[in-house]
Amino acid sequence: MPLPSDTLSAQPRGCGALLLALRREVPLVQCLTNFVSMNYAANALLAIGASPAMVHAQEEAPEFARIARAVVINIGTLSSPWLQSMLATAEAAARAGTPWVLDPVAHQATAFRRSAADALLARRPAIIRGNASEIIALAGGQSASKGVDARDAVAQAESAALSLALAHGAVVAVTGEVDFVTDGARSARVAGGSAWMPRVTATGCALSAVVGGFTAVAPDDPYAATLAALACFAVAGARAGRDAQGPGSFAWRFLDELAALDAQALEAESPLR
Amino acid sequence: MPLPSDTLSAQPRGCGALLLALRREVPLVQCLTNFVSMNYAANALLAIGASPAMVHAQEEAPEFARIARAVVINIGTLSSPWLQSMLATAEAAARAGTPWVLDPVAHQATAFRRSAADALLARRPAIIRGNASEIIALAGGQSASKGVDARDAVAQAESAALSLALAHGAVVAVTGEVDFVTDGARSARVAGGSAWMPRVTATGCALSAVVGGFTAVAPDDPYAATLAALACFAVAGARAGRDAQGPGSFAWRFLDELAALDAQALEAESPLR
Amino acid sequence: MPLPSDTLSAQPRGCGALLLALRREVPLVQCLTNFVSMNYAANALLAIGASPAMVHAQEEAPEFARIARAVVINIGTLSSPWLQSMLATAEAAARAGTPWVLDPVAHQATAFRRSAADALLARRPAIIRGNASEIIALAGGQSASKGVDARDAVAQAESAALSLALAHGAVVAVTGEVDFVTDGARSARVAGGSAWMPRVTATGCALSAVVGGFTAVAPDDPYAATLAALACFAVAGARAGRDAQGPGSFAWRFLDELAALDAQALEAESPLR
Repeated sequence: MPLPSDTLSAQPRGCGALLLALRREVPLVQCLTNFVSMNYAANALLAIGASPAMVHAQEEAPEFARIARAVVINIGTLSSPWLQSMLATAEAAARAGTPWVLDPVAHQATAFRRSAADALLARRPAIIRGNASEIIALAGGQSASKGVDARDAVAQAESAALSLALAHGAVVAVTGEVDFVTDGARSARVAGGSAWMPRVTATGCALSAVVGGFTAVAPDDPYAATLAALACFAVAGARAGRDAQGPGSFAWRFLDELAALDAQALEAESPLR
Repeated sequence: MPLPSDTLSAQPRGCGALLLALRREVPLVQCLTNFVSMNYAANALLAIGASPAMVHAQEEAPEFARIARAVVINIGTLSSPWLQSMLATAEAAARAGTPWVLDPVAHQATAFRRSAADALLARRPAIIRGNASEIIALAGGQSASKGVDARDAVAQAESAALSLALAHGAVVAVTGEVDFVTDGARSARVAGGSAWMPRVTATGCALSAVVGGFTAVAPDDPYAATLAALACFAVAGARAGRDAQGPGSFAWRFLDELAALDAQALEAESPLR
Repeated sequence: MPLPSDTLSAQPRGCGALLLALRREVPLVQCLTNFVSMNYAANALLAIGASPAMVHAQEEAPEFARIARAVVINIGTLSSPWLQSMLATAEAAARAGTPWVLDPVAHQATAFRRSAADALLARRPAIIRGNASEIIALAGGQSASKGVDARDAVAQAESAALSLALAHGAVVAVTGEVDFVTDGARSARVAGGSAWMPRVTATGCALSAVVGGFTAVAPDDPYAATLAALACFAVAGARAGRDAQGPGSFAWRFLDELAALDAQALEAESPLR
């Protein structure tokens, strides 16, 4: 399914306004995410201006989804009790009209993970964010990656993203050197960031969390919310990459830059094309 | 219950001496804490000079409480198996005469969390540390916060802290821009720190862990121990805040400053009032 | 059992070549590790050039061990479900011919942990890495440490390491100020690193993970692989220590230095003796 080039939007879609809204509203974002990324994802949400809550247990996560303004579900370090809670929380979010984001980390790696991703997909996420290998596999294609890291180029995942968006009525974001986002009707590419990003664990998971933050303040426009989050990561990533000496210094500089982003600079440096 | 101003102590209570004791004794501090804060809390304990042990499972946590010199229980990412272990460990600590610290993270958010906080409170913590919203709710009041972040001012939580201290025979610390500490008879306020602190996840949890570290070397004076920990965070936080460019650079500078603190500077810069 | 000095090899054993191989092959390294170290261990693996996968649940960890090129098992925050998965994964790794590394964190602290270490030891790890207290206790000796931190000197653990290596057919690495490595026939000491390393949580766990990374590219020579990992940590640690102001700045500088290491500098600065 070749991507018609005229579906690529040329303009930033109000990223600056969404950032202002997020900072004004400080939305409560519930994350059921993996152990590796919890701290970094919470710090990214705090840096951008949201209020993270890592609430995952079945005893309370579905209840919490009713007060959260967005839910982020990430299967990075999955186990059966967590999966049960994720499914119940996704359903509670759907019933409450709370948008939720699916990050299907390495779902192609094992049978357990594949069936988890399928079951979550059936609970209608508003947004799906993954790397190229994950999105290709989620659309039923053959991915080159066995593990967590992408081994496919984003460009090769564009048609998979489109068909996934159409099949599930979701915004799909494929992230990598140049990100690709589509809701089936519209699509855009986002360049920027830094070569250090794939060398810092949990940047992808943190991005999914921040997508949740923007979706919380634009629940009726998950496509624009996703673009805003990607633009923030692209601009802050490029800035952090300028002074970083390696992955260690990139990681904290990136949080500083997320916090320092302002709406005008975001629009001016916005890497959408 | 208005707070009589003459109960506010004007002098630091031996913070410097307690810091020297902690560094000499390197006390073993057992933490049953949340997934988000484990790494940062362990690093804060190491930085200040204690020996952290994140031991939480029911198979061993109560046994470990007999060799630990203080126990810290934090319900940030709670689930039923963890709660069972927390209750058993709190009881083992009480039986062994080991002081323990309760951090009732966001206990007002869900029914599960509320009942967990109540059950833990009944196991007689030596110290309770929370933000204003948590302390108000724990004392039976109406908090403005739904999630993890405080939405109430510390000053509004002072009478709640007093009644909680009297009801449970515990030291209660409410932390925020200016902290408030009371054991029911004495009380003090601690200013200092940095505006970046609430923008870095797990600083509150790390503080509870360090309160545990000081309590380990002053088990008969949890009030002075709590003040010493708060003073360390206030001084190190203010110093780190001076050079930080954002939350990312604050987080590591703060650990550097905790490690660099010396007893004399702590007393000289001590922000108790 | 005194250590004959002539068993100490005087030459670096191809550390540079192994580092080049690791960067060329980007091996998938599966870690079943503790909650405190997951993020830092993943970042260390990414920094050195490997592909980490924190996959631990019994539903998938044994299956994943068949696609991973090395497995790292670390009992730092153990519970029964995790132990069951660790045992099954160690067996799956053994059946698949995948080498695995055991990090018996604080196994001497509780009965649960002791029996876990024994059960894992019986599944034939290729490499055992611990601090002096852990290795002494694992060999049946009396350790001075109750908790996570070493309270014994590496030199006192050398004969314990030798007997452990001979009894289990494993490479044993005792790490501390000067590391000691032996496979029972050969042995070496590795100096270097920084005094900040024991003040940063999870550096030992990250080292075990990186040992896994090198073993993945030299499965037939776990002794050389272990030396290469220790050499990387010694050189990168010494470099990071030069500019660090404390444990916070050491932690990220160390990741930068791991990423910046090149084969030639590694051999030139190699601290084996």
